[in-house]
Amino acid sequence: MNKSLCVGVDVGGTKVAAGLVDSNGEISAQVRVPMVSNSSADEGLNAVLSAIAQVIPRGTDGVRGIGICAPGPLDPDSGVVLNPPNVPCWRNFPLAESVQERHSVPVKVDNDANAAALAETRWGAARGYQNVFYATIGTGIGTGIVFDGKIYHGRTGSAGEGGHVSIDYRGPICGCGKPGCIEILASGTAIAQRARQEVAAGAKSSMLELAGGDPASITGEIVRKASESGDSLAAKILGETTEMLALWLSNIIDLLDPEVIVIGGGAAALYRPFLGKLRERIPQFTVNPRADEVPIISARYGADSGIAGGAALCA
Amino acid sequence: MNKSLCVGVDVGGTKVAAGLVDSNGEISAQVRVPMVSNSSADEGLNAVLSAIAQVIPRGTDGVRGIGICAPGPLDPDSGVVLNPPNVPCWRNFPLAESVQERHSVPVKVDNDANAAALAETRWGAARGYQNVFYATIGTGIGTGIVFDGKIYHGRTGSAGEGGHVSIDYRGPICGCGKPGCIEILASGTAIAQRARQEVAAGAKSSMLELAGGDPASITGEIVRKASESGDSLAAKILGETTEMLALWLSNIIDLLDPEVIVIGGGAAALYRPFLGKLRERIPQFTVNPRADEVPIISARYGADSGIAGGAALCA
Repeated sequence: MNKSLCVGVDVGGTKVAAGLVDSNGEISAQVRVPMVSNSSADEGLNAVLSAIAQVIPRGTDGVRGIGICAPGPLDPDSGVVLNPPNVPCWRNFPLAESVQERHSVPVKVDNDANAAALAETRWGAARGYQNVFYATIGTGIGTGIVFDGKIYHGRTGSAGEGGHVSIDYRGPICGCGKPGCIEILASGTAIAQRARQEVAAGAKSSMLELAGGDPASITGEIVRKASESGDSLAAKILGETTEMLALWLSNIIDLLDPEVIVIGGGAAALYRPFLGKLRERIPQFTVNPRADEVPIISARYGADSGIAGGAALCA
Repeated sequence: MNKSLCVGVDVGGTKVAAGLVDSNGEISAQVRVPMVSNSSADEGLNAVLSAIAQVIPRGTDGVRGIGICAPGPLDPDSGVVLNPPNVPCWRNFPLAESVQERHSVPVKVDNDANAAALAETRWGAARGYQNVFYATIGTGIGTGIVFDGKIYHGRTGSAGEGGHVSIDYRGPICGCGKPGCIEILASGTAIAQRARQEVAAGAKSSMLELAGGDPASITGEIVRKASESGDSLAAKILGETTEMLALWLSNIIDLLDPEVIVIGGGAAALYRPFLGKLRERIPQFTVNPRADEVPIISARYGADSGIAGGAALCA
């Protein structure tokens, strides 16, 4: 076996995914097991151990380490999961230590966006860069900051929560308590919700038909499809959220002046036709005279970013 | 002479201030000479050289280095001032090199907020910390980020422009092109302007009398005085801008999770009675479960932060 292989584990509220990742970031031997997140801490742990065992049937002898993306908040130094809303069975749970008891290799734990930022830096779209801002746009918006090739954790491990940077102090209140976080304005969830509200209020749009006549069934994917077919409401919504993203990323550039911005996540596809507009708007929104030079590029990893991210923690 | 002394120089649009700074950050031998910022590059340089000569009458033999706070944008690596609106005579002007030709000691150049952040970290309110967020609130809002005890410059030297982090995508347009930068919402200038508008529009307030009956004469200082005397309009304005500052700082905490936040600048006094409210609101605005632990403290240096900052660049 090759010592350059790492195990990457991605723990969610309903499933655990794991895989082997080589020194080029290629993923093999992927598995997926169910996670029962509201039972006992040990059952949750067993799901993780089972996924790991399936990707390394002959043990960890030939493996460099195990990296786990776990729901936050967590302490990346100690590998303790604090009180994740998505996995309530783990309260102050020493995840890294518990896995290390079974496998005598280094075990690292971090949150998914941080880990994915590192995977993109090591093996993906940001390869060759040292200072990277990574955003994953899905049901929420997560971000990770890489400085000097390493995840930037801040004082308590809670840095890099860029999805909770507000651009609207008079906006809707986010779960974090802040009004107008970019997550609540421009995530996949936010886009779908906006379309649902406008259509339910009577706005004319092909999205109603695409959703089978029920406004409540409009998804982000439907907004994307409708926009591509020339639906003006869908295009207007995506145009407006693109403008918000541009403002938010210009905040990031003025504060951090990163070498590159990488965008991933399940809802990133909604923005793909608007990347040109995003690149055009950002320099108009910053004091940085060279903001137009910052590449804004699509992530390498998609649904498997958690596996790659986990592995990157140990690579 | 003591080799632990550094020369700190603070270049503004109308004057150059300089001083000697010892290893405890104490400033001595301060001078101030006029700056003619719209004449030739050499005349601007001569003002700087004259100020330096006055603080070190016996030459630089005993001095560790010279650090200069200059108006941005500039390149801190090369010490070249690019195209500062406040000092138009310096376009792509090699300030560090030009000063070094006369004095055979290291010469560093950086912007004032970055340099002041470093001075606070070395000698001031943030002494003992490594990861510091510094904000100076005056006519504008400038910020500096210190990571691992060093100024964080980003890719091009333009990082740390936190005054241009927007919290209002529908807000007034800032000089940087962004709507709703915190600088345009909560600086000393913004507070005074808000008070002027409300009073001019007929709102009842003791500020009118304090301004000699002319709403256009209301200053930030008048807003502060009126608020302390129980004027409800003045208190409302400062309460609202405090709320904006709290949201903005919670953005910073969610992104950077700094060890400490230091607030300085000429208009910081306006917020001093509201520091308690600021400390109370910030944790309500973040996902960081330990945001309440981040000290929010007043800067050591006031009007002399540029001299201290310049010296810190070489210390």
